[in-house]
Amino acid sequence: YLHSTQSTVTDAPTKKNIFAPLDTFARRHIGPHESSNSEKMLKKLGFENFDEFIKTTIPPSVLSSRDLKISEPLSERELHKRLDELADKNKVNRSYIGMGYTGSITPAPITRNILENPAWYTQYTPYQAEISQGRLEGLLNWQTLVSELTGLSISNASLLDEATAAAEGMAMCVSTALPKMKKSDSKKIVFFVDANCHPQTINVVQARAHDLGVQVRVGNALSDLKDHSQSSSEHLVGVLVQYPDTNGQIIDYTPLKEKLGDKTPLLAATNLLALTLLKPPPASILLGSSQNFGIPMAYGGPHAAFLACSDEYKRRMPGRLVGVSKDTSGRRALRLALQTREQHIRREKATSNICTAQALLANMAAMYAVYHGPVGLKQIAERIRGMTQVLAEGIQKGDAGDVQGSGLFFDTLTIRVKDREALLKKAEEQGINFRKHSTENTVGITLDETVTEADVNDLLRLFGCNQMASEIAQAMNGPKPLPEAFQRSGKVLQQPVFNTYGSETELLRYMHHLQSKDLSLTHSMIPLGSCTMKLNATSEMLALSKPEFMNLHPFVPKDQAQGYAELISELEKDLSEITGFDAVSLQPNSGAQGEYAGLRVIRAYLDAQGQGHRDVCLIPVSAHGTNPASAAMCGLRVVPVKCDKDGNLDMSDLASKAEKHKDSLAAFMVTYPSTFGVFEPRVKEACEIIHKNGGQVYMDGANMNAQIGLCSPGEIGADVCHLNLHKTFCIPHGGGGPGVGPIGVKAHLQPYLMEHPIVSTGVGEKGVPPVAAAPWGSAGILPISWSYIKMMGANGLTHATKIALLSANYMAKRLAEHYKILYTNEHGMVAHEFILDVRGFKASAGIEAVDIAKRLQDYGFHAPTMSWPVANTLMIEPTESESLAELDRYCDALIAIREEIAEIERDEQPRDSNLLKNSPHTQRDLLVGEWKDRSYSRERAAYPLPWLQEKKFWPSVGRLDDAYGDLNLFCTCDPVAAEEEGERPY
Amino acid sequence: YLHSTQSTVTDAPTKKNIFAPLDTFARRHIGPHESSNSEKMLKKLGFENFDEFIKTTIPPSVLSSRDLKISEPLSERELHKRLDELADKNKVNRSYIGMGYTGSITPAPITRNILENPAWYTQYTPYQAEISQGRLEGLLNWQTLVSELTGLSISNASLLDEATAAAEGMAMCVSTALPKMKKSDSKKIVFFVDANCHPQTINVVQARAHDLGVQVRVGNALSDLKDHSQSSSEHLVGVLVQYPDTNGQIIDYTPLKEKLGDKTPLLAATNLLALTLLKPPPASILLGSSQNFGIPMAYGGPHAAFLACSDEYKRRMPGRLVGVSKDTSGRRALRLALQTREQHIRREKATSNICTAQALLANMAAMYAVYHGPVGLKQIAERIRGMTQVLAEGIQKGDAGDVQGSGLFFDTLTIRVKDREALLKKAEEQGINFRKHSTENTVGITLDETVTEADVNDLLRLFGCNQMASEIAQAMNGPKPLPEAFQRSGKVLQQPVFNTYGSETELLRYMHHLQSKDLSLTHSMIPLGSCTMKLNATSEMLALSKPEFMNLHPFVPKDQAQGYAELISELEKDLSEITGFDAVSLQPNSGAQGEYAGLRVIRAYLDAQGQGHRDVCLIPVSAHGTNPASAAMCGLRVVPVKCDKDGNLDMSDLASKAEKHKDSLAAFMVTYPSTFGVFEPRVKEACEIIHKNGGQVYMDGANMNAQIGLCSPGEIGADVCHLNLHKTFCIPHGGGGPGVGPIGVKAHLQPYLMEHPIVSTGVGEKGVPPVAAAPWGSAGILPISWSYIKMMGANGLTHATKIALLSANYMAKRLAEHYKILYTNEHGMVAHEFILDVRGFKASAGIEAVDIAKRLQDYGFHAPTMSWPVANTLMIEPTESESLAELDRYCDALIAIREEIAEIERDEQPRDSNLLKNSPHTQRDLLVGEWKDRSYSRERAAYPLPWLQEKKFWPSVGRLDDAYGDLNLFCTCDPVAAEEEGERPY
Ligand SMILES: Cc1ncc(COP(=O)(O)O)c(C=O)c1O
Ligand SMILES: Cc1ncc(COP(=O)(O)O)c(C=O)c1O
Ligand SMILES: O=C([O-])O
Repeated sequence: YLHSTQSTVTDAPTKKNIFAPLDTFARRHIGPHESSNSEKMLKKLGFENFDEFIKTTIPPSVLSSRDLKISEPLSERELHKRLDELADKNKVNRSYIGMGYTGSITPAPITRNILENPAWYTQYTPYQAEISQGRLEGLLNWQTLVSELTGLSISNASLLDEATAAAEGMAMCVSTALPKMKKSDSKKIVFFVDANCHPQTINVVQARAHDLGVQVRVGNALSDLKDHSQSSSEHLVGVLVQYPDTNGQIIDYTPLKEKLGDKTPLLAATNLLALTLLKPPPASILLGSSQNFGIPMAYGGPHAAFLACSDEYKRRMPGRLVGVSKDTSGRRALRLALQTREQHIRREKATSNICTAQALLANMAAMYAVYHGPVGLKQIAERIRGMTQVLAEGIQKGDAGDVQGSGLFFDTLTIRVKDREALLKKAEEQGINFRKHSTENTVGITLDETVTEADVNDLLRLFGCNQMASEIAQAMNGPKPLPEAFQRSGKVLQQPVFNTYGSETELLRYMHHLQSKDLSLTHSMIPLGSCTMKLNATSEMLALSKPEFMNLHPFVPKDQAQGYAELISELEKDLSEITGFDAVSLQPNSGAQGEYAGLRVIRAYLDAQGQGHRDVCLIPVSAHGTNPASAAMCGLRVVPVKCDKDGNLDMSDLASKAEKHKDSLAAFMVTYPSTFGVFEPRVKEACEIIHKNGGQVYMDGANMNAQIGLCSPGEIGADVCHLNLHKTFCIPHGGGGPGVGPIGVKAHLQPYLMEHPIVSTGVGEKGVPPVAAAPWGSAGILPISWSYIKMMGANGLTHATKIALLSANYMAKRLAEHYKILYTNEHGMVAHEFILDVRGFKASAGIEAVDIAKRLQDYGFHAPTMSWPVANTLMIEPTESESLAELDRYCDALIAIREEIAEIERDEQPRDSNLLKNSPHTQRDLLVGEWKDRSYSRERAAYPLPWLQEKKFWPSVGRLDDAYGDLNLFCTCDPVAAEEEGERPY
Repeated sequence: YLHSTQSTVTDAPTKKNIFAPLDTFARRHIGPHESSNSEKMLKKLGFENFDEFIKTTIPPSVLSSRDLKISEPLSERELHKRLDELADKNKVNRSYIGMGYTGSITPAPITRNILENPAWYTQYTPYQAEISQGRLEGLLNWQTLVSELTGLSISNASLLDEATAAAEGMAMCVSTALPKMKKSDSKKIVFFVDANCHPQTINVVQARAHDLGVQVRVGNALSDLKDHSQSSSEHLVGVLVQYPDTNGQIIDYTPLKEKLGDKTPLLAATNLLALTLLKPPPASILLGSSQNFGIPMAYGGPHAAFLACSDEYKRRMPGRLVGVSKDTSGRRALRLALQTREQHIRREKATSNICTAQALLANMAAMYAVYHGPVGLKQIAERIRGMTQVLAEGIQKGDAGDVQGSGLFFDTLTIRVKDREALLKKAEEQGINFRKHSTENTVGITLDETVTEADVNDLLRLFGCNQMASEIAQAMNGPKPLPEAFQRSGKVLQQPVFNTYGSETELLRYMHHLQSKDLSLTHSMIPLGSCTMKLNATSEMLALSKPEFMNLHPFVPKDQAQGYAELISELEKDLSEITGFDAVSLQPNSGAQGEYAGLRVIRAYLDAQGQGHRDVCLIPVSAHGTNPASAAMCGLRVVPVKCDKDGNLDMSDLASKAEKHKDSLAAFMVTYPSTFGVFEPRVKEACEIIHKNGGQVYMDGANMNAQIGLCSPGEIGADVCHLNLHKTFCIPHGGGGPGVGPIGVKAHLQPYLMEHPIVSTGVGEKGVPPVAAAPWGSAGILPISWSYIKMMGANGLTHATKIALLSANYMAKRLAEHYKILYTNEHGMVAHEFILDVRGFKASAGIEAVDIAKRLQDYGFHAPTMSWPVANTLMIEPTESESLAELDRYCDALIAIREEIAEIERDEQPRDSNLLKNSPHTQRDLLVGEWKDRSYSRERAAYPLPWLQEKKFWPSVGRLDDAYGDLNLFCTCDPVAAEEEGERPY
């Protein structure tokens, strides 16, 4: 039943058919693409062929017996053609729908040099700070931008979208309030949301709150709130408003703030661009989307959301946070700060489950601000405001409708019209979309940076105004000034970075300079266990350069998005087939969101079965930190399950805990192959135990790359599973996002998948509320995974899995002669990743995993995953995309490092100052000053292996001082160049 | 009359009109885009405003009084929209026209990481070898590819197109034969061209030969040649054939070769891809286009042509040649070899005028071969051959036509059809183009890599064949084997580079590794005098990513290329306006080709006036080497004109020579502003002198960037002028090409502009024959210059000129305190460039220009133009695109170097080993081994200025040993890695 060796998939195609295209993709994707190489690797492991190897690696009980039903692979050119066909089926109207999504102009150099540049998009999250200073600086710029415009001191390095950012803000309020509440307090916890927030935001917040046992009241914050805040049976933990609101109105929230006082935080969703003109609202937490900073709408995402807070909330800040610290030689250096807040440390007590965010988009938005500078941004905002005023004036002159509200607006008008259907029809005929408000006969129009005078004239005509925009503008004599109370005063964005790179040449060099500090897949392999850093092929990325995919508003009528619809349904089908499930939802925009979504679906299902009380979630101690955090977000009680010494689930512990909680057991979360890198033989049995005790099985599919075509979550017995498309399915990591975390489910769960309040996802009325702002989350990057599957076909995908397993086992085999491999199966095999146990070196040489990780930088390599899932170890996942030569180079480096450790063990190098402890070595360290007190040469520090003389990547700073940075938290750029000021603590 | 200060062009746009777009381009293009910066610069020079500055810099007699009539500037987004409109007017048919242009698949990673990557396309020609090892390696791969497939030992680093390569081959034959001929020999020199070469090739060769006084005989080389070679009145210098020929026939030229013997060289135009299957023809010189190695047709170009020769011709090889040499520490290093052949040394005695070639395209084609490897290339060729056989078989079965010839073909069929018009009409209805042979009722079909089974079926149907391609293929049971005489035997491309990078990951890393060695505009300014290394903006490059521009065959019916037609006519019009001429031809694909074309037009005009005997060309000694070389190619006698000590034309020498030669004076070639970087005040007078004596004035417009909007060749008095669009008009240099060298002419010359034998350029019957293979030369890159002009508008262009002049004068002013500026005008002003006179340091410190150039690399900078136009000097041209900060950084570096020289002068550093003499310093030099015998620290070597610690670019090899490389010429990659073999001389 095992699939054949498929060497034809990877070697250059044979000419069984003279017409067969030769630009086949699988052999380009797979690193050891010549069968001679895979044969060498099999031989090293003592196998004659793939069948034997696979049977020894994957337990027979788990191996699938079916063939994947996926359409025949397309060649790269066929794929491009098919993508063009789909693009043609998307109709790019002028969309004035607003609601958090507008047109925006991405400066061409940013598109080309960041979005379309593999040296940026293949970067990993900047945990290895010394080889990530470029993107860290980009993200610090982002944080500075957000801080400056919101007027709040702390901003994180991005969140997923505006709606989830609002939910995160709500959760911050709850977790701030809870410790202050008495245990005995029986008050209901209430979060108030103004009804004039975007509907999708309200929906997402409601659902998240509901799961936390928090009641959301939706109403008019200015008028309704008195009652709530004073209700004795309720505890108001926060109030969310929108500024300008979803109808476009700019409202003064100072009275509200005064009413709330210091105890109850005010939160506001806002518009960064509007804040260049408007005074920020008096909120403690401000959030929103930065999409209008040069990021395409992309039918819903990805875009970077922001969240900023005042100092008092900083330790509850969700997501990653870049901070300024220093390196060992005291030089300024950036790194991720306050890591201890995150889930891998705090698990179910973490503030949030957010892990992958939107780093690439945050970098782009920040670069947009760097290019335009404070003056340029303000001009863009003023132009939009001016055009909106002209439009409002003109609509009033016309006979079709009345502009609603106070007359104070930035970019959005709400208009009562006489005959909405007629208007919308006429508009659509002209390729124009308006927002169709839920209020009868009301439409919304939001203008943006891309709008032209001709566009405004078209709108005026639609509204029966017979004056031209220019006439109206002339008569108005410039936009009305904002009332003083709303006018932003004082200068923002005076930092040099926002005032230096205004010419394309300077911007280009700045982007390339940042890039030059960062190690990415363009340099060498990044074998991060659990992260699947595989090839992100250019052909897969093409849709991101096509306006038909990029310029679609997420809420357009469905007939304008037929190309997306087709692509989405094909991708859902293929992923269902691959995972062995009946349905897939592509809405979650990260793996962690997928976990949360999956657990929500389980809860909804249980509820429908009258099992709503079930609230226990069993989670193995080896689970990724997002698992318990997501469970907690869903209001589940986490009960840990042990693992045995081989890294397998402790089946008797599982059985007894399942039994013990059988009346309240809701779910079991399990990663397969396990986070320890083994295919557990008894996983099916585990699933049966859970089912027997009334629970549902949630599989964390982060490790799906080890399964495709060989086994599947559905067949193993899972009920739901998320996938990280940004791991297994080739969406690049982008330096920490974007990602997509779809969930697959069995048929019984399908009715409970996520719906959406504006555009139905087709699930139906039993569907749970959305977990993301847009119906298909980050739709814009789905073509990447779709393309991958289309070009690989069933054989290609299956072969890729085999090579991923083979590469891991090959490396493990080579390294086992020098290091201890922590977990293997009974045949000594690992899955697609494995853990190097380096804990013994602490005693023998004073060396820890971090020292090896940093020394690897001197060898031009990114470290494996460090200290996860086991402290002080290194987890290696090579993926199928690396060539045998590259696998060997990495092994050679680790073996050479082992020898360097041996020198310490033999006392040939001092324990406190040696090649590892002093690593990484920077150019400056090696070149500047004297070379004394060093027991090794400069040459050995820099070029420990001969090929480094030809191909050397340099860390741009020395080892980071993390503790220092956390103690002295700075999360924005200096107002003036550091050297000049000299006041910062570095 | 002077245009206003235009500060609004560069500062962020003001809101005089609220609808005005804000994505304006001029301020992004211009480096000192804030008026505060230009004011600072003016002030440093002692001016209050631009008017004063310009009047002092440009002689009043030369200043123009008119305003440029160019359409209002488009914003970047408006430009993109307009470009899309034009794209829609190009109709991309399936073109089977062949004739040297076919479809080809550019692998997506090569498009993205080379063609669309500024770190590749903004590179300069690799004269500074130490910071150019990446592209040098790419070009060495190209040479190896060509050498291997042609079986000839020497290949150059690319030529402009197949037709001009053939002409260069012809010229090599002539210049080889001439020295062997007796002076008294009155034999006619004859070059024979087989009639079955591509018609455009024949045409270009004929014209070039004619100018050299060589007679071309066109006929059947196999049958007609006996007579010619034996004619006593003629001296046959070479024979050109095509293999496979223009009709697709593969012919055995061994008998011809035998007939010719060793004395008369056989040349063949050939197809590299076919040579993976076919034995190379027995020629001493092989040439052709590499367009089918993954380069888009682009309506004619740019594509890299190749030319390879046997060893005996190597010193006559035109174009650049990469050779393997070593650096000062004995390590293998690449550099341009045999430079002494080139025009800047040999002037009118040079073998060829070729300067800018097609480096970027050669790099792409070589990378295509690197990716596919020998096996992949052969498969592609076999698939094409197989499909062509199926098609031939099917056409024979059909009733519409008969395949002509012997049945031996690779990719091209010639078919006699019953009713050609009907067939062509039906084909066109289906979006299909055939070649319309000049022979009645004959069509040609050429298949290529992009052809699919469905395409072949469509063709079969058109020819009335009612079998499907698959049936025919099955019946044929695989392509017929080639007759043994034609079969290629033996392995080619066994070098590691063609057998290592077959996965996309490996290819990606290889491309990025090469890139990392090369300094480009993404790093720092490249102020090469006479080269105008300005911003190559992303928006300007967009057409190169659009299939509607890239996938058009140059010989399609004109109604399929309306977008191009419109763009070309707009560009011609704008360039005419800018240069003050009446017409422009865009055909020449380099500046040197422009010179040659312009002189040809002059000769044709003179001829028509009965002045065909005029053959003297006056050229100032300061002229660029291509000027005399081009004049010589046109059969003109070069008479040098002196310059005075201020760098101005010696007017009395000019007058006396013009007078002396008044009966034979054909032309005067003059560069303006002069190559010495001054606006000569008496240039109009010079033009009058020439005209008075019956000559025409040819202006070399390489320095047009100093003129636009302020003065113009036409107004100054020139009759013809070429422009380098790859300088002034933003086509990137691409590491040594592509380029476009259009010529502008006064009305009296317009009828003599270049025509084309296949697609009329509209000039008419008086037009001279083409100077390039395609009617509009490198049409595919014309959108770049078109976009630049459209986005800048008249004001933007004029302001750019002012800033270019200002930047040069600003730098000259700062540097004048430390260096001698060689030439200035009477007010002490320079033009857009200036010469640093460093000749005095030879005596004072043993330092030459080259030492400063190399030391600049340590400062992260590319050297200025070295030793041209004056030996042992440096010529600096900053352009308008550099920010004031960057200009200052460059000045700071030069000033610091001056101080390093002063230390030598003061004997604080030894003359033979100091910071300059040992430069550039590589990482390895500084890190490896002992640091003794050095009078300075490692730190000072690497970080002479503080900002280098943040932003350092490293040369990847030490200073090159040029003489060594020329003595030991190696121009291909090693068959195995150098280290392993150890036989090569490094
Ligand atoms: C096992 C596992 N589960 C879940 C996640 C969370 O995925 P995301 O980062 O997309 O939220 C990860 C991410 O590293 C993971 O490794
Ligand atoms: C003054 C001058 N004329 C002519 C040329 C030749 O132009 P091209 O290299 O495009 O052939 C150059 C090129 O550097 C030049 O500087
Ligand atoms: O790849 C770089 O351009 O650094």
